[in-house]
Amino acid sequence: MSQGKIWIVGAGPGASDLLTIRALRALESADVILTDALITDDVRSLFPEKSIVIEVGKRSGDGINPMERQQNIHNQMIMYHSLGHQVVRLKSGDPMVYGRGVEEIRFLLESDVEFELIPGISAGMAAANEYWVPLTERGKSSGIHFHSAIKVGGEKSDLDGIIREIENNDTVVIYMGLERLSEMAFELNQRLSKETNINVISKVSYTDSDILSGNTKFFSKIDQSDLPASPAVIILGNHTKVPGKITSRRMDKKSLKSHVRKLLAQPFLNLF
Amino acid sequence: MSQGKIWIVGAGPGASDLLTIRALRALESADVILTDALITDDVRSLFPEKSIVIEVGKRSGDGINPMERQQNIHNQMIMYHSLGHQVVRLKSGDPMVYGRGVEEIRFLLESDVEFELIPGISAGMAAANEYWVPLTERGKSSGIHFHSAIKVGGEKSDLDGIIREIENNDTVVIYMGLERLSEMAFELNQRLSKETNINVISKVSYTDSDILSGNTKFFSKIDQSDLPASPAVIILGNHTKVPGKITSRRMDKKSLKSHVRKLLAQPFLNLF
Repeated sequence: MSQGKIWIVGAGPGASDLLTIRALRALESADVILTDALITDDVRSLFPEKSIVIEVGKRSGDGINPMERQQNIHNQMIMYHSLGHQVVRLKSGDPMVYGRGVEEIRFLLESDVEFELIPGISAGMAAANEYWVPLTERGKSSGIHFHSAIKVGGEKSDLDGIIREIENNDTVVIYMGLERLSEMAFELNQRLSKETNINVISKVSYTDSDILSGNTKFFSKIDQSDLPASPAVIILGNHTKVPGKITSRRMDKKSLKSHVRKLLAQPFLNLF
Repeated sequence: MSQGKIWIVGAGPGASDLLTIRALRALESADVILTDALITDDVRSLFPEKSIVIEVGKRSGDGINPMERQQNIHNQMIMYHSLGHQVVRLKSGDPMVYGRGVEEIRFLLESDVEFELIPGISAGMAAANEYWVPLTERGKSSGIHFHSAIKVGGEKSDLDGIIREIENNDTVVIYMGLERLSEMAFELNQRLSKETNINVISKVSYTDSDILSGNTKFFSKIDQSDLPASPAVIILGNHTKVPGKITSRRMDKKSLKSHVRKLLAQPFLNLF
């Protein structure tokens, strides 16, 4: 019916150079790009001039039913594909992490068209790299747990799981959790055996990205309006303290120089 | 002391075009590349010809103590940096996910040198995208849990956590777990309230990548030698079944054509 292909592409957290090379190539060959609202101007600057760009993301107050929106995305994908176009469905982050990628896969399989997924850097990983937030550390923390927005009131089980994960010294990464953060921190402060560290990383990889770190007590008292801007990812756990402020243990310039001099005195080759 | 910079770079799962654009740029400007053993030939083909490439990864049977190996990596980073070189420390996957990135950050902070981390696509995400393994799905599964190699015997608590996560319909991703897979599947088969789905994805994004899917019962009986090759990532959970084999619900060619005809009859513009 057509020679086109559909790519479901992860755009990563926002910076255009955090797309994969494969994602960039798919974009460059796209005739039609169906794009989420969260896709940044920086990423949009990579869109080919000739491409048709269609906004299919949720816009605040647009009143569209989520199922209907998803069905419309499916319809648009298949319509442009049937016209022989190369179609890119561009999603922020990674298509399989809170991205409804599976719904689109199921639809495309039913439609029997050729498609391919391209992974993207997920915000939690990008945040950890940008702000040196430990996710795992040998001998300290070996589990990483991703959760979407926490429903503290309705579904206590979510918070029970998070509490177990923190008490186990694992790392917890929460997406879309900004609105309930104070409430969650308040509950954690009451129920955890000790205060735990919380990092809120806002607009990861954007030029105005920001981090706010503190413990459960700090965040349980903070005014919601003082929190960094959305979109944000929350990373918490007993071993998630950003090591940037360890100045006391810092090697002084003199001993560093002497250390390097010693190394340079060794035969200049692979030590392994 | 020098104008060089140290980049700690995630190389992703193996395919060279799954590096980020930022990672590629760092590599292209590298004078010295300290590379892990798992870095594929495909990724190595991106190394600039002029660069000094130093293998610092673990080689089976090299007998080097892990602490000593890590210290040697730190020494090499700082030595080449002090000579004014651009140094790339290349790690497979993402530097912060089971990659000892935090240890290197701590060392570099103490040494007071300029450095930057660049995230990479982690194997679990890449596997999900390559083989359409659901990680999250609306209304079905909202948590993703990363674990490193499971110590079924020594530390039962690991498996208790995994069992809770599966019973909660969440998705579990296990790195470096191939050796204990049959043993783990056997225990899960005994202790879970129902059989759960297991996917073993080997050599994600390599040209000879492979997936083996089955349930806990299947994997509890499998001979270790019949498992796909290492490196592999294991994705399990009640909603992790790969939707590729849903043929019964597939729209037939005729109804698809009629569906598309209907869509094309609509005004040809953004429906949103």
